[in-house]
Amino acid sequence: MQSSAFILQCSVASDADLAHQESLFSLGNGRIGMRGFPPSRIPSYHPGVFINGFYETSAIPYGEDAHGFARTAQTIVDLPDCRYLTVSIDGQEVSAQTRTLDMRRGLLTEEALLANEGSEPIRLRWQTLLSMEYPSYGMVRVSVDAPQAVSVSIHSSIALPATIVQEGFDPRTAALDSRTSIEILKAKSVEQAMGFDLHLKMRESGLGLYCGSRHRIPDGATASNIGHASELPSLSITASTTSLVVDKLFFYHQGEQAVVEDLTWDDLLLAQEAHYERFWQQSEVVIEGDEELNKAIHFNLFQLHQSTGRDGKTSLAAKGLTGLGYEGHYFWDTEIYAMPFFSHTEASTARSLLRWRIGHLGYAKQRAREVGEAGALYPWRTIGGMEASAYFPASTAQYHINADIAYALLQYVDVTGDWTIMEEGGWDMLVETARLWLSLGFFNPRKGGRFCIHEVTGPDEYSALVDNNLYTNVMAREHLKRTAALLSRLKEEEPMRWASLAGRLEIADEEVERLEAASEAMYIPFDETECINAQDDRFLSLEVWDSAKKGAIRHPMLLHYHPLVIYRHRLIKQADTTLAMMLLPSYFPWHLRRRNFYFYEAYTTGDSSLSAAVQAVVAFDVLDCELAMGYLRSTALMDIANLHKNTKDGLHTAAMAGSWLALIAGVGGYRLHGSTPFFRPLLPQRWSRLSFSLRFGSTTLFVDIGSEETIYHTDGGTLAIMHRSTALEVGPEALPMPTRPRCKAVIFDLDGVITATDAYHYRAWKRLCDEQGWHFDRELNQRLRGVSRQRSLSIILEHNGVTLSADEQARLAEQKNRWYRTSLSSLGPADIFAGIEQLLQQLKKRSVKIGLASASKNAPFIIERLGLGDRFDYVVDANVVGRGKPDAELFARAAEGLGVLVEECCGIEDAHSGILAIKAAGMRAVGVGSAVDAELCDVHVEHPRDLLVDDLLF
Amino acid sequence: MQSSAFILQCSVASDADLAHQESLFSLGNGRIGMRGFPPSRIPSYHPGVFINGFYETSAIPYGEDAHGFARTAQTIVDLPDCRYLTVSIDGQEVSAQTRTLDMRRGLLTEEALLANEGSEPIRLRWQTLLSMEYPSYGMVRVSVDAPQAVSVSIHSSIALPATIVQEGFDPRTAALDSRTSIEILKAKSVEQAMGFDLHLKMRESGLGLYCGSRHRIPDGATASNIGHASELPSLSITASTTSLVVDKLFFYHQGEQAVVEDLTWDDLLLAQEAHYERFWQQSEVVIEGDEELNKAIHFNLFQLHQSTGRDGKTSLAAKGLTGLGYEGHYFWDTEIYAMPFFSHTEASTARSLLRWRIGHLGYAKQRAREVGEAGALYPWRTIGGMEASAYFPASTAQYHINADIAYALLQYVDVTGDWTIMEEGGWDMLVETARLWLSLGFFNPRKGGRFCIHEVTGPDEYSALVDNNLYTNVMAREHLKRTAALLSRLKEEEPMRWASLAGRLEIADEEVERLEAASEAMYIPFDETECINAQDDRFLSLEVWDSAKKGAIRHPMLLHYHPLVIYRHRLIKQADTTLAMMLLPSYFPWHLRRRNFYFYEAYTTGDSSLSAAVQAVVAFDVLDCELAMGYLRSTALMDIANLHKNTKDGLHTAAMAGSWLALIAGVGGYRLHGSTPFFRPLLPQRWSRLSFSLRFGSTTLFVDIGSEETIYHTDGGTLAIMHRSTALEVGPEALPMPTRPRCKAVIFDLDGVITATDAYHYRAWKRLCDEQGWHFDRELNQRLRGVSRQRSLSIILEHNGVTLSADEQARLAEQKNRWYRTSLSSLGPADIFAGIEQLLQQLKKRSVKIGLASASKNAPFIIERLGLGDRFDYVVDANVVGRGKPDAELFARAAEGLGVLVEECCGIEDAHSGILAIKAAGMRAVGVGSAVDAELCDVHVEHPRDLLVDDLLF
Repeated sequence: MQSSAFILQCSVASDADLAHQESLFSLGNGRIGMRGFPPSRIPSYHPGVFINGFYETSAIPYGEDAHGFARTAQTIVDLPDCRYLTVSIDGQEVSAQTRTLDMRRGLLTEEALLANEGSEPIRLRWQTLLSMEYPSYGMVRVSVDAPQAVSVSIHSSIALPATIVQEGFDPRTAALDSRTSIEILKAKSVEQAMGFDLHLKMRESGLGLYCGSRHRIPDGATASNIGHASELPSLSITASTTSLVVDKLFFYHQGEQAVVEDLTWDDLLLAQEAHYERFWQQSEVVIEGDEELNKAIHFNLFQLHQSTGRDGKTSLAAKGLTGLGYEGHYFWDTEIYAMPFFSHTEASTARSLLRWRIGHLGYAKQRAREVGEAGALYPWRTIGGMEASAYFPASTAQYHINADIAYALLQYVDVTGDWTIMEEGGWDMLVETARLWLSLGFFNPRKGGRFCIHEVTGPDEYSALVDNNLYTNVMAREHLKRTAALLSRLKEEEPMRWASLAGRLEIADEEVERLEAASEAMYIPFDETECINAQDDRFLSLEVWDSAKKGAIRHPMLLHYHPLVIYRHRLIKQADTTLAMMLLPSYFPWHLRRRNFYFYEAYTTGDSSLSAAVQAVVAFDVLDCELAMGYLRSTALMDIANLHKNTKDGLHTAAMAGSWLALIAGVGGYRLHGSTPFFRPLLPQRWSRLSFSLRFGSTTLFVDIGSEETIYHTDGGTLAIMHRSTALEVGPEALPMPTRPRCKAVIFDLDGVITATDAYHYRAWKRLCDEQGWHFDRELNQRLRGVSRQRSLSIILEHNGVTLSADEQARLAEQKNRWYRTSLSSLGPADIFAGIEQLLQQLKKRSVKIGLASASKNAPFIIERLGLGDRFDYVVDANVVGRGKPDAELFARAAEGLGVLVEECCGIEDAHSGILAIKAAGMRAVGVGSAVDAELCDVHVEHPRDLLVDDLLF
Repeated sequence: MQSSAFILQCSVASDADLAHQESLFSLGNGRIGMRGFPPSRIPSYHPGVFINGFYETSAIPYGEDAHGFARTAQTIVDLPDCRYLTVSIDGQEVSAQTRTLDMRRGLLTEEALLANEGSEPIRLRWQTLLSMEYPSYGMVRVSVDAPQAVSVSIHSSIALPATIVQEGFDPRTAALDSRTSIEILKAKSVEQAMGFDLHLKMRESGLGLYCGSRHRIPDGATASNIGHASELPSLSITASTTSLVVDKLFFYHQGEQAVVEDLTWDDLLLAQEAHYERFWQQSEVVIEGDEELNKAIHFNLFQLHQSTGRDGKTSLAAKGLTGLGYEGHYFWDTEIYAMPFFSHTEASTARSLLRWRIGHLGYAKQRAREVGEAGALYPWRTIGGMEASAYFPASTAQYHINADIAYALLQYVDVTGDWTIMEEGGWDMLVETARLWLSLGFFNPRKGGRFCIHEVTGPDEYSALVDNNLYTNVMAREHLKRTAALLSRLKEEEPMRWASLAGRLEIADEEVERLEAASEAMYIPFDETECINAQDDRFLSLEVWDSAKKGAIRHPMLLHYHPLVIYRHRLIKQADTTLAMMLLPSYFPWHLRRRNFYFYEAYTTGDSSLSAAVQAVVAFDVLDCELAMGYLRSTALMDIANLHKNTKDGLHTAAMAGSWLALIAGVGGYRLHGSTPFFRPLLPQRWSRLSFSLRFGSTTLFVDIGSEETIYHTDGGTLAIMHRSTALEVGPEALPMPTRPRCKAVIFDLDGVITATDAYHYRAWKRLCDEQGWHFDRELNQRLRGVSRQRSLSIILEHNGVTLSADEQARLAEQKNRWYRTSLSSLGPADIFAGIEQLLQQLKKRSVKIGLASASKNAPFIIERLGLGDRFDYVVDANVVGRGKPDAELFARAAEGLGVLVEECCGIEDAHSGILAIKAAGMRAVGVGSAVDAELCDVHVEHPRDLLVDDLLF
């Protein structure tokens, strides 16, 4: 542990930084949240105090109303501050000068040093903690140390919420004025306990709160109630002393009056230290070689931990408990961004978050009825469980929330092995949310009977109300598939349990079949022109932003353009297809993930704080470490560096959780394959180490990625894992593996590497051109190297200035191919280049897999003729290839077919575009002959016979 | 004139009918509107009084706000009632018992007969008019006639607006409470004039109103001010008499105090009678044979006239001046539904409506900036000129409003020849609205560079935010095309004027080219599968409502389903593609209009009152008189019969105007072809006559459609018109034409009518099947009659259980065709059926055009071989035909090619599907041979030689 990573420090700013720092230094214990302002509330930007899940309601206004619109807004409440106190020394009120957040202990310390003429300075200290052990309680300890006796006067009271003035228009900030919404029922001094009690109620939601404080003062100090300033009780503590310690316990109980526990500073601090020791033990992530990021990940995990409800009745708001942004609402951020961290490090918290969702299934079923669907539809924004979204295109329409929740539930079960959650409502939630899809989508005759889901909004809110959003369809497919499979298994393996469930939820056998059928028929948009997954049915048809017409884009766009302008352009707010690839990579072969990633990366605006983490993970996946590092930094430093300029409104909890994902799934390459953890480390150059631990069932796995070795071990049990394509059994003993990939396969191009068919092609084309009376010569033939048959014919036609119908072109290309294939019958083993057979034998001997990646549809025929048919472990089928070289697809497909990762391969090529394809696929590139640029190759030889097995392996 | 058509009468209902009748009996003069409630306001449902263009404002609330949303709501105000008075006889207050609306004079009369023991009853009468000549004034005359002297007491005052309680949820009704919005500045008696003055101001909009009344009482009666009951002045008039007449003049001046004119009942009544005489002279439409519809059209035109502003500062609200529905907003209804009526009957009103739009161009330019576009964007809903829509998917997104306004402007100019409007801002409006399209749309590389307009809502609000809405694109295309053409012409013909315009609006030559280029490249969605125009890029992909899944549809859907449910289904609120076909028929050949019409008709819900008129016009166009009549009745009786059950909220002015369209453009078949009026009468069976007049430039054209003859004449000048395909010059002399169509062309099928190629086909198929080893015989050959080559091959393959690739099928079909065509070379004149050549000669002699409608792509080749190549005036190109027989397309294309209407044609066929095609095309069907059902044919012969020229003609 590097202790500096646990310390955040600043001088108490009075300038523009104040608002930002106040968010950064926030304290929280999952229930109470308190921004990082001083006990005296001066200076402060927004001295906010919040209780998780405590909200006010109001009717959502609509200029033009419609059926099924959400009715009731819910807004987190800025509460009275029960910590409030001021300290005066010799009649002069003292303000804090420095502020230190100790993340190893969950303790905020503010200090002031008062110059003291000709003597040691007077030292004041305010230490605040919000107790993790006793979540309704917090305490501030005030300490004064002076070289000689001074007169200390502490004024302690309750402060009402302040008014925050928002500058400019920003729909992402909240509007509720807490002060008019809070009804104070009773405020009184509790003299025997030196404290105050305050009962309040929210006028509209009716939620009640009982809060207050208790003081502990040393002998020699005196305390007196000084009445009800502005209706609130207050206490005055005075002493003349060289050293004074006053403790103020404060509490927030939701609901009615409760017993106030008599807790001391030591009680709370010891418990807090023990709690955080446990937390860091199970959750710490250490980066060596980048102190800034190392501090950032510690900060992010600490704040994430502080903001998350653990009582099964609350969740994690978009801004945690650190500000009013997004009205304190809970979103899908919990399930998709935060839950992976908790499921892998602190299962009890993950479980509690799931129980919170399960507890609101009733509301979700009711909501589905309101929007005309079967099953359940979880709210896009909520605190109390009801949909609280006022703008349906970017909320109600995000039906993917259902699949997100199901994903998080099953990920939790997969990782922890805790099936009891299913019995505690998990089944109901899984089935009711899956049912929605059957009602929402349909088997579309216009898409060949594929199951389509229309008029939804995906994660990308810059494309609202689209048909067949890729993310939604892929996630719904998985949701349906797993639900059907789990129900079928339950029926088979636990008939009693099945009978009870099926009875309660009225699940007919036929419904399970329908879930499965919809999953299997799910339409996954794929564009044949770009050879990528389309984000939705219309995304690729959108206009690319034309600066000449509309000027340079102003960001964030939602503050500068009418939604219609945004929806009309090929621009992305939140990573969408890229997120689907992160969550469900098995739905996309690697070459497609790579192609999709770069395509969408170009249109992703960065207007959302949710994108960077996802882009980081997938950039690591496609081996683009430089790009990945940029995104990793963006998500990890989002708040510390105030990258979105709005940290003042609260911390970005999803981005904080995303930084964990970017490290574990990005740098560590972690995925769960079925029940097997898989790692694919890609340590950034400057770094010397990334270490973290993950918990699977009852076993903790420690992963320590160094620049040379990656060391795995467990806390006791054994665990089957994958290190790239190598299966391992990990136990308590350190198991070192090479961090960098090793060569597991060699992939050959055919023509020019194994044999030469140029002459055959030439003759066939020549014959065709002669028959048609077209010109053709060796020079023109050169232009056809590595080019597909169809494209070759196009080049010839263009050269001759001939235009033909598509049918006629197909006919002629087919004719040429027939002649070519016929001529190939003279091909035989003698045509194999010298040395190649030996090379193949040597590779076999060394257990290196051998693949063939040729663009030629005749490749299987040719290797058969050459007598090499059984030498290749995998031959790519050129018929299914969407994009030829220099795209990575051919080589990546070969790697996939061989069951290895691209970076574990070596590719051999004699063409320039082939070498580019190998490099694009992240493989070692071996070039042959003069047609390739030797500079681009890792190894270059003049002739195939020069290829040495040791040049290929690494 | 049938006088009963001008009279609407009822007893004053006290039951559920009250609200409905109160709307029907509304009075208006374009400025003041007053619902049909009695002067005593008892009984009444909503005693509303309105001033056109007088509104209150308020901030539009948004639960979640966004950039560019409209900010200010505008709502028509329910005003104080200055007519208010009660009458008591012998101390007993009397209520009206009957109500009579005299539409010939614009006068509402209410009457009561009081039983009078043993004597004649006492008669009371209240007559109200709102003066067309003096639009700020109205008057009520109270008359009492008694057999013996009675004591009459009249209490006269001003009544404040009543509260209306809306039952249930309906976003189409308004919510403003006028009473709290009106600030009364001064209310006083004006003793010398026996009247009251009231000054008021709207609290938010600041609009001021000066209103009040003046009384005229006979000698013998006494009047006394009785103070200010509820702050408003009142007057008591008493007399003891057998006969009393009291006149109360009331007035509404917008703005500051104005001089109150001293007008008598006779002044006003005479002017009113003169006004309405002129109105009916120029606007009356008479139906003979259907009294209900005749009364309805009189009622509709009367109410339309009453509600329309004529001062250049106001327009026509969706509910006219008859209720609070739609907040009193002006929509596109004015331009698309009402303007055609005014442009053709009362140009000054049409001009005033255009001036109103032109006056708000500044707001429209500002609005375009707000939504990020160039040029101008007119508001979807407004009173004062600013966008007042709170729900953008069904408002701001309806950019088609720009094209609607341009359409109305140019229609006005085309019909009236009044180019001065262009100099008075018309050019600016035309150009600025056209500019928007260039900014909004783009040349889409994904659609081959076609100009696409994305993310808009067309007229159909059940499909919001779509790409390439057909209506929008077609209307924008016309808008751009005509703007570019007019600008080019202006530049050429009036260079000075052009220089001034181009300077003022900064029009570069290159901009005109861009307008033209966008128009030419405009993408018009057409679906190759259904062979119809697609309403937009996604409409055909939508789910068809599945009652098994969602239950039977509840109407109107917007009150029962979340918008997303509606948007997700193939359902239509407002006619959309059908409207485009009505407005711009030349963009759609007749067969396509027919096919589109029936396709969309099936999905049109009737939830909008705007659809029926349009569907009526196009149903007449496609000759479906029965369906057309249903829609005509729907639009004409919308309010009288309360078809939508919400006439209580105000009359449906667009439906009323639509009934004029349905008669003139539907029954009369009127269109303007360039500058030539075109008529195509289709008189419903029960009717004996439809007569109307239209004004073109300075000439009025009278059209009198009887069941036998249609008689045209003008009021002086001569006019070139078309009666179906016959060009006429019409002057003041009656010019009779046959109402029913006459035969102008005969269209032949080829095979089996002119010659027989069966045997050739048989041999070619037989040879193909023999070569392939498939079974083929005469019986199978029979199944190929009238069937395309591709389809024939499919039948053969199916019969033989063979599956082939599309390429292979194409190859084989081509092979068969080669053999078939080669064999045809033996075909010659001798193969023409006996009698056909003579028939063709006879038709030629009678100047009947001759067409050929064969599905065979070999038809031109065959008639060439037969030596008949020069006998046909038009031969349909089978290559461009989307759907073969029994679809109407082949025959309709032939009629189009011959320059005649389908109903002017006779078709000859030997196949069943051919006869169906002829009938579908609305032609006389002549069947030949035994393969047709003689019952379906108008004429049937056994053999082509039996065809007699007189059997064909009609």
